[in-house]
Amino acid sequence: MSRLDSFIRRVTAQRDVLDHVCTLLVDLPGPVIELGLGNGRTFHHLREKLPRRRVIAFDRALGAHESSIPPGEDLVIGEISETAARFAGIGAALVHADIETNYPDVDAETARWLPPLAASLLREGGIVASGLALCHPELVPLNLPVEVPHERYFLYRLGARTSSSALEPGSLQERLQH
Amino acid sequence: MSRLDSFIRRVTAQRDVLDHVCTLLVDLPGPVIELGLGNGRTFHHLREKLPRRRVIAFDRALGAHESSIPPGEDLVIGEISETAARFAGIGAALVHADIETNYPDVDAETARWLPPLAASLLREGGIVASGLALCHPELVPLNLPVEVPHERYFLYRLGARTSSSALEPGSLQERLQH
Repeated sequence: MSRLDSFIRRVTAQRDVLDHVCTLLVDLPGPVIELGLGNGRTFHHLREKLPRRRVIAFDRALGAHESSIPPGEDLVIGEISETAARFAGIGAALVHADIETNYPDVDAETARWLPPLAASLLREGGIVASGLALCHPELVPLNLPVEVPHERYFLYRLGARTSSSALEPGSLQERLQH
Repeated sequence: MSRLDSFIRRVTAQRDVLDHVCTLLVDLPGPVIELGLGNGRTFHHLREKLPRRRVIAFDRALGAHESSIPPGEDLVIGEISETAARFAGIGAALVHADIETNYPDVDAETARWLPPLAASLLREGGIVASGLALCHPELVPLNLPVEVPHERYFLYRLGARTSSSALEPGSLQERLQH
């Protein structure tokens, strides 16, 4: 299969997954976190589907079309693994990560830092949609819409934090008190 | 319609148009000219569909995935309007132009220099597939495959050169003798 054919399947899966996810967010407050603004097409789509939701976008550099650039306070430029970490605890309803490169070594590195970052950004019950598979004890895989081919996109919900997670004992106690 | 929905329609149309065009090239010798290599996805697709055809790609800067970079002699970096003009007369079977930006002023400028450039690169009967509409006396519009939405992509065949074209009288005589 050519890279063009594969790409069409991937962006179609992405759109179908995002449309599905938006229906799951109805009773889930919190902002949307867009990791990897890129050209801004998925940001534009999310803003259309979720017009009253704050969407904060992160990227290494600004490369978006002018129609798809978030307002200043919702655009964070810099290494995503570092800039987004500063938003841990924000209680996002949705984290969307579209940052795979198709370079195996780069994507393997992303697969290390992205799962704990996504978990730290989400509220409990929040959802992460990702082009890369994420392995993390708190991220519980969700079924994809039936029209999405297997392993084209991945969906998880942040479950209850467990003792196997990497929380400090203090943080765990704090959570239990609230 | 969101930019993501619109983009899915555009790349799907692009793939369907290219697949259709490849069936039209069977008896038409000559190289393929790719104006705008970008990420290299359509280059990868054309190379898969036309494995024995030389494909020469042009772009302002190299941004392609490593799996989709042409060999050195078939990759020309620089302002496309200038670099590709040096290949006028190469007798291409196909010119594929994927260089629209969705910035109206930039695309209007491209719509001025691209049609005569494409015509100069093609052999008679050669085809140009473009994301922008092209207006040129020698470029005759072709029907799109039925599955492609109207005005998502454009297809032309280089017809007989007419006296309204900018050929030198000598060149015209030379053409008539052959």
